Amino acid sequence: MNGAQLALQAAVDAGVDVCFANPGTTEMELVAAVDHVPGMRAVLGLFEGVVTGAADGYGRVTGGPALTLLHLGPGFANGIANLHNARRAHTPIVNLIGDHASWHVDADAPLTSDIESLARPVSRHLATVSSAARAGTTVRDAIAAASGPPSGVSTVIVPQDSAWGSAGVHDASASVAEGFDIDEDAVEQTARQLRGGGRVVLLLGGVVRRAELDAAAAIQAATGCGVWIDTFPAVLEQGAGIPRFDSLPYFPEQAIDALADVDALVAVGTSAPVAFFGYRHLGVSSLLPAGAASSVLVPGGVRAHRGLDALASALDVSAARSPAATDPAEIPGGDLDVMSMGATIAALQPEGAIVVNEAATSGLGWAIASTGAPPHETLALTGGAIGMGLPVAVGAAVAAPDRQVIALQADGSGMYTLQSLWTMARESLDVTVVICANRAYRILQMELHRTGHDDAGPQARSLTDLTSPTPDWVALAKGFGVDGMQATTIAELRAGLEQGLATEGPFLVEVLL
Amino acid sequence: MNGAQLALQAAVDAGVDVCFANPGTTEMELVAAVDHVPGMRAVLGLFEGVVTGAADGYGRVTGGPALTLLHLGPGFANGIANLHNARRAHTPIVNLIGDHASWHVDADAPLTSDIESLARPVSRHLATVSSAARAGTTVRDAIAAASGPPSGVSTVIVPQDSAWGSAGVHDASASVAEGFDIDEDAVEQTARQLRGGGRVVLLLGGVVRRAELDAAAAIQAATGCGVWIDTFPAVLEQGAGIPRFDSLPYFPEQAIDALADVDALVAVGTSAPVAFFGYRHLGVSSLLPAGAASSVLVPGGVRAHRGLDALASALDVSAARSPAATDPAEIPGGDLDVMSMGATIAALQPEGAIVVNEAATSGLGWAIASTGAPPHETLALTGGAIGMGLPVAVGAAVAAPDRQVIALQADGSGMYTLQSLWTMARESLDVTVVICANRAYRILQMELHRTGHDDAGPQARSLTDLTSPTPDWVALAKGFGVDGMQATTIAELRAGLEQGLATEGPFLVEVLL
Repeated sequence: MNGAQLALQAAVDAGVDVCFANPGTTEMELVAAVDHVPGMRAVLGLFEGVVTGAADGYGRVTGGPALTLLHLGPGFANGIANLHNARRAHTPIVNLIGDHASWHVDADAPLTSDIESLARPVSRHLATVSSAARAGTTVRDAIAAASGPPSGVSTVIVPQDSAWGSAGVHDASASVAEGFDIDEDAVEQTARQLRGGGRVVLLLGGVVRRAELDAAAAIQAATGCGVWIDTFPAVLEQGAGIPRFDSLPYFPEQAIDALADVDALVAVGTSAPVAFFGYRHLGVSSLLPAGAASSVLVPGGVRAHRGLDALASALDVSAARSPAATDPAEIPGGDLDVMSMGATIAALQPEGAIVVNEAATSGLGWAIASTGAPPHETLALTGGAIGMGLPVAVGAAVAAPDRQVIALQADGSGMYTLQSLWTMARESLDVTVVICANRAYRILQMELHRTGHDDAGPQARSLTDLTSPTPDWVALAKGFGVDGMQATTIAELRAGLEQGLATEGPFLVEVLL
Repeated sequence: MNGAQLALQAAVDAGVDVCFANPGTTEMELVAAVDHVPGMRAVLGLFEGVVTGAADGYGRVTGGPALTLLHLGPGFANGIANLHNARRAHTPIVNLIGDHASWHVDADAPLTSDIESLARPVSRHLATVSSAARAGTTVRDAIAAASGPPSGVSTVIVPQDSAWGSAGVHDASASVAEGFDIDEDAVEQTARQLRGGGRVVLLLGGVVRRAELDAAAAIQAATGCGVWIDTFPAVLEQGAGIPRFDSLPYFPEQAIDALADVDALVAVGTSAPVAFFGYRHLGVSSLLPAGAASSVLVPGGVRAHRGLDALASALDVSAARSPAATDPAEIPGGDLDVMSMGATIAALQPEGAIVVNEAATSGLGWAIASTGAPPHETLALTGGAIGMGLPVAVGAAVAAPDRQVIALQADGSGMYTLQSLWTMARESLDVTVVICANRAYRILQMELHRTGHDDAGPQARSLTDLTSPTPDWVALAKGFGVDGMQATTIAELRAGLEQGLATEGPFLVEVLL
């Protein structure tokens, strides 16, 4: 057994058995090892941003890490943007970066660079395999650090001589995950706040599933507190019969309004809310009113229900009844626009669907209509690094082959990692891709206005415009082996969605907005 | 005038008047400023790897920097791979990265990350605009550092409050480029070596144009020294009537053989040669025989002719006669393969063409046949970070609108930054794209063999295979607004090339190999 085989065997032994990969020469031992370690599945991406985004989607859906396999500093760098999103989602991921043989690094060969400097900003755990014999231990430690709680991104640099070196017998000792203990003082303090007379708000973030929502609903029913969901949660379960709370608005003016009467905010599975960007006309980062208290019951990377359950116990709160199902969405009449597109998708999406939402400005209609859809989960753009939607859909579909994945995808951000379509085709992933084609960086057009540049000139306008030429997403999909169609009417969108949902494997609908 | 306008005005005043951009919200002031600063041209890329690769191509062709405009850490990260290549090419580039307003950084908003840690590995100069009033000076200093000599990549972080703040009057003082003095001791030592009896070899790298080649030819004629070109030079001028020297082979065994009799190697515009990767069966990094001397006459980032001219003077060498033109390539008969593809391109490429060569294993035929083609320049993959070819072709075409650009592009690496095709269409760039479609990471298949993995299993094979599905580059090009065709015969390739060279704007030929 060599170091590469030992590394993969340690992963499989820890239950980590999917590796999203875009390898190069320094990963040849790891590539060869995939077939020598029973139970490891390798999934190829044509670009590293696909690989890391897929690992993010996989980790959000399963709660456990996938491996990525990346090529030196530049290959890793191509995956940083989606690792940034994963970091903000606290998604468990273990990156394996093949590096030059240790004795070759000082030669400063063409592909040499400072990998640690590149990796540190997105990695909560960073290690180098110091010898083949240490490959198992190093990978196990990385998996433990990624799994947490708190969970997050681990990065392991594998020098090629550590991969090809003889590793002797596999050390099968179990990995030790990090522990997390509920902060009883924080529970007690929050309980006191909720029993007091002030306006207390719970802000839920990270992975927000039924366990979190039920607990929050029970606490709200008993105490009258406010409950908000982070603007961009890693996972949000929602739909008919599931307790529902509003998401904090994206634009800071609206968020500040929403929180204007808050005396105390308690972050659960997240941190106190701040503006996505700092605006000159606002001049503040915090979205809370001056003087409001802010505390963290459970930090990011730990499931919020652990704090909420403890809080419910401290308050002696019993479970709330599930809400009545709201009316299911119906396929609307009229023209095809952002609102009717969202309603049509919501009306057709099946129970258990995973909706990866990188629709940006085109997502409003679906956000409203989906509350009445059958129970499902939605995955948001947690870190603002665009290009997550299609890769995360790849990973979600690998993680949950029995569920329908719908990628609700803005056209501008979809361009960053469109190579994802190829992996969808290769792996026959059941993804229905809905491209929201407004042919613009619409959010930037809004931001030009918001920042006082209504007088923007022709070059500035051109930098936010995606016409001349207009991309043809159906042709692009065909180029990657994915069938698709354009939709200009609600009837066409309906036909496309029905075909996509019925198709084994991927299908793309480009909605002209 | 605000800081953003001052920054762009300082660039235009220094002769830097092209900005390759993929902006976001934190760059809105810089976007708006483009139209307020006469003479600045903005070129949009759909992905940051296109933007930085285009700046690399532009800088290699013109010798001066373009700006890039990138969005925070994640946007910059998407451009790192091609900046890595630019760093290895010592290409002058000035990156402008919009960052949060300085007072918003501590809020750790979703898009916040450690930009400096990401930027340092690819930047020889790194600065932050500390106030609007300092925007001009900071950009000027960055341009000077990028221009050198030695030239290289500069990165400037522009906090949004430094962009929107009032900057007062534009300070029009001239920028001061770095100086470089020829090392007279190194010249004298090299002259002594060349006059001695040993086998001395000059290794030329970086931008290698006629000035370098003529000087090297003269020195060789007078002294009998060996002359090699770096395996992957930033620019190499070649063709009929131009002195020609072999490039150092890529595989280390061959390079070691080529240099086996060397007593002293003198690097000019580059550094001493090392293996691209460290191989277990070789166990060495250096390509020189044990005991051989190695020195640097002119470092990377400085044009080699400056050292060669001084050396020629010290040796009292007169100019060599230009070599007789070799026979021009002819369009071959037979089947379409790597060799006949290369010969056909070489036979049709016009004088002054810029051939961006990321053909990898498919480039052999062209490398051989192009020596007899009309004088032209070729740009290589300097840093091994694949995905440079199409972006560099974008930048080369923007830099030299009166010349034909041919992108000789492997299909695997082309996938990393295929969004470049859209910018070619939008800007109507005269690029003929030749996709060498072998539907494999062929170099990795070779490396599996070289590293002793001939027994690689099905998953390992699959990770180096680009079929299932087979990408359709003509469809992909159509999706980005670029016309194209497939070629399966020499006649079809010829027709495609002739159409591409005759077309105003881009054209793509997918050669099935």
